[in-house]
Amino acid sequence: VLRHDHPLDPIFHPRAVAVVGVSTRPSFDGQLGGIFLNAILEQGYQERHPLYAVNPKMTEVRGVPCYPSVLDIPGPVDHVISQIPAAGLERLVDECIAKGVRSLHSFTAGLAETGEPELVAEQDRIVAKARAAGMRLVGPNCMGLYVPGVGLSFMPRVAHEPGNVFMLSQSGANASAMLYGLGRRGLRFSKGVSYGNGADLRAHDFLDYAAADPQTEYVVGYIEGVQDGRKFLSALRKLATVKPTILLKGGITSDGARAANSHTGSLAGSIEVFEALCRQTGAWHAPRMDDLLDLATVVTSYARIARGRNVTLIGAGGGTAVLASDQLALHGLRVPPLPEAVQEELRGFIPVAGTSVRNPVDATFGRDHPLDFTHDRELTERAFETIVHSPTTDMVFTTVGGSFLRDETVETREHRMRATIDEFAAIQRRSGVPIVMIHEEQRVGNAAVHAHRRGVALMPSIERAARAVAELMEWREVRAGLPAFA
Amino acid sequence: VLRHDHPLDPIFHPRAVAVVGVSTRPSFDGQLGGIFLNAILEQGYQERHPLYAVNPKMTEVRGVPCYPSVLDIPGPVDHVISQIPAAGLERLVDECIAKGVRSLHSFTAGLAETGEPELVAEQDRIVAKARAAGMRLVGPNCMGLYVPGVGLSFMPRVAHEPGNVFMLSQSGANASAMLYGLGRRGLRFSKGVSYGNGADLRAHDFLDYAAADPQTEYVVGYIEGVQDGRKFLSALRKLATVKPTILLKGGITSDGARAANSHTGSLAGSIEVFEALCRQTGAWHAPRMDDLLDLATVVTSYARIARGRNVTLIGAGGGTAVLASDQLALHGLRVPPLPEAVQEELRGFIPVAGTSVRNPVDATFGRDHPLDFTHDRELTERAFETIVHSPTTDMVFTTVGGSFLRDETVETREHRMRATIDEFAAIQRRSGVPIVMIHEEQRVGNAAVHAHRRGVALMPSIERAARAVAELMEWREVRAGLPAFA
Repeated sequence: VLRHDHPLDPIFHPRAVAVVGVSTRPSFDGQLGGIFLNAILEQGYQERHPLYAVNPKMTEVRGVPCYPSVLDIPGPVDHVISQIPAAGLERLVDECIAKGVRSLHSFTAGLAETGEPELVAEQDRIVAKARAAGMRLVGPNCMGLYVPGVGLSFMPRVAHEPGNVFMLSQSGANASAMLYGLGRRGLRFSKGVSYGNGADLRAHDFLDYAAADPQTEYVVGYIEGVQDGRKFLSALRKLATVKPTILLKGGITSDGARAANSHTGSLAGSIEVFEALCRQTGAWHAPRMDDLLDLATVVTSYARIARGRNVTLIGAGGGTAVLASDQLALHGLRVPPLPEAVQEELRGFIPVAGTSVRNPVDATFGRDHPLDFTHDRELTERAFETIVHSPTTDMVFTTVGGSFLRDETVETREHRMRATIDEFAAIQRRSGVPIVMIHEEQRVGNAAVHAHRRGVALMPSIERAARAVAELMEWREVRAGLPAFA
Repeated sequence: VLRHDHPLDPIFHPRAVAVVGVSTRPSFDGQLGGIFLNAILEQGYQERHPLYAVNPKMTEVRGVPCYPSVLDIPGPVDHVISQIPAAGLERLVDECIAKGVRSLHSFTAGLAETGEPELVAEQDRIVAKARAAGMRLVGPNCMGLYVPGVGLSFMPRVAHEPGNVFMLSQSGANASAMLYGLGRRGLRFSKGVSYGNGADLRAHDFLDYAAADPQTEYVVGYIEGVQDGRKFLSALRKLATVKPTILLKGGITSDGARAANSHTGSLAGSIEVFEALCRQTGAWHAPRMDDLLDLATVVTSYARIARGRNVTLIGAGGGTAVLASDQLALHGLRVPPLPEAVQEELRGFIPVAGTSVRNPVDATFGRDHPLDFTHDRELTERAFETIVHSPTTDMVFTTVGGSFLRDETVETREHRMRATIDEFAAIQRRSGVPIVMIHEEQRVGNAAVHAHRRGVALMPSIERAARAVAELMEWREVRAGLPAFA
């Protein structure tokens, strides 16, 4: 676990944690304690540092000692996670201050986002008290912190191993969409934070932290409302100059803005302003969650090795190749014909010749000689090596490894996919030409995770791959004048 | 099986079929005979009419009598499916003419689409011979005919029961994308035809047939090149005036057009011209295959009952609802707040109240009282009935029935989905308000098929549903001046 001297760093490395308001009733998964205690136990925080629960009705919950109040906990507490109703929050803040707590995360909704003047005032009062005492607040109305390696989490079944992607989100649901969605594709996180109303700590605080954090190489985020526009701009500029940053904005229409206002009390602001802000700072604005997931997958795989917009497409032929070519071209990539000499070379050793080696290259070859590493390793490797060395190939998009697998079991498919991924990773490493794999059903076991570890992205469709890769290429061109990343 | 007196009708109702060039080697699925014989046997043509095979090396294949040539078949033959190499096609045409065959489908590629002058001339000669003799050609370079009910097919595992959708495709791969893709969603077909090079029978012939065919209510198609523009325009106008028609165009970019030219020898033409042609005639132009699938699903479910663009969205809350509202609004739908009186009514019986009944309506309600028919039937029905009767609800989009099903088995999920579908279908029938179900993983067993039979569409994402529904609404507005469908 890499530490550094940013003022927020201690929040991500608490030396003792208490979960206040743990549940005495079994939750969704049949366990007592509620989602936060369960997620933290699953991540193993208690194996590293003291973990406490607070609820006057219990003395122990799932092996965790439970106390009537924060003040009753015998040892020091750095971080408190609160699940208690909003009405009790102010008193809890007082107790936490008295206890010397460094940070308080409040899950509970029902303060400023309601728009009720007295609840807005209450939230303001809580923030003022905490700040005066040097205690920081995460939330309220949010899921809080995910710090793999340290053992903090707010969701079950997220990776224990830390990674290089920082995730921030004003929404808990979209935090989980990013953590699960990117996790399935093999991305791993340095830290994750869901910050809800942003009463104290806000987007700009976390962007500033992510810029300084040596563990973070990439940043993804979901923002409903920009609070403190000037600080946000400055933090985003600092961050996006040094680390690829992808932001999704909620409330970009008036219907969405109304929903955002109900959700986190955010004033969504104009999408034009937000887009301009991203363009100015070199950050990406992802228009949809799927775009964010696709872009993050492509960027973490290829940002450093992408070379140009000329794609050689190797996969199904016929009408499928026609539509695939259209999609690539519509997104601003190119599908140039392979030079005549390269086509000749391919025809020399691929038994079924024809226009299908032009680009798109038909990998099915009448089923008798399909290009498929698990069918004919030598032939397939030779074809790919020939193609990646063509001067017209900046990048390969391929459905090889996916199209022949319909009738097999998940285990066989996963095994074949892994073997295929290893071959592509080796060719990509030797040639420096990025290879993007396309597979209809993305969840061939953990094949996508395996692919990402090998530096290859497994994408769900030609169109989604094309859109994300085109975004990456455009961004590289726009950034040509900015300093290079480390 | 409905017959009519269109000149092409006999082609779809052959009284005897011969498959020429059946394979002596086991194919993909381990069976002798090749894909066409296997697909037809699976559909059961041989139970209705005489089925023959032709290959001089065998006297029987999978129970089908096999002869050295078409002329050796003892009985009459109406339709011949040819898998022999292009070089033998001209002789086969002569034999078929001598035998009195009505239609010949040639699978084999390698004629005009190669661009080689002598092969173009050969194709022209074949067409001239066939026409002079009154025999029609399907192809070459295509998959031919799918006629459920009659027993003709070119693919395994497609429905045996006929339906009301006519499918035409210049590409075999895209024919299968439509048949499988729409089949999984419960749509069923009157006829399907993959016509490849369109040497004799072309798009306009099939459009003309579909307009006249009483079994056909909707038409989907994939076109690479418009042959005979004037006839195409006139046939499409006639068809789209009476039946909703959705066309996907391949080769809409120069890279795609090059691929289309290699594939079927098509001159793809300008996309602007094709779009104008669709607009003029009242047909849809689907920009991508996914759009065609989504639109066909929505159109066959709601074309006759859709009322307006005001959507009430019932599902997950928070940031998910924010992004969903944005997507609906971006596609030109609206998410208006429910009237205060309706919100009051909902708050009256939904235990956890708040802004979440405004629209979007949060169906999760803190997990204790989720809106879910299989959790609390009465509460859920009352909530939906209240919402569909709001004057602000033209249509409901809902994720209810999907979001609580993550941890269950496929069987349990399918059972719950079917029960939920039945509830929604009943509410839709009673109220006349279309209910669009959104479910992340579309393949909950056969739930999508069940939904379509009940008149409800199960869509893979809010965004895809919004895009398709918005297209439908726009088309209804554009068509306001055209005659109503039957």
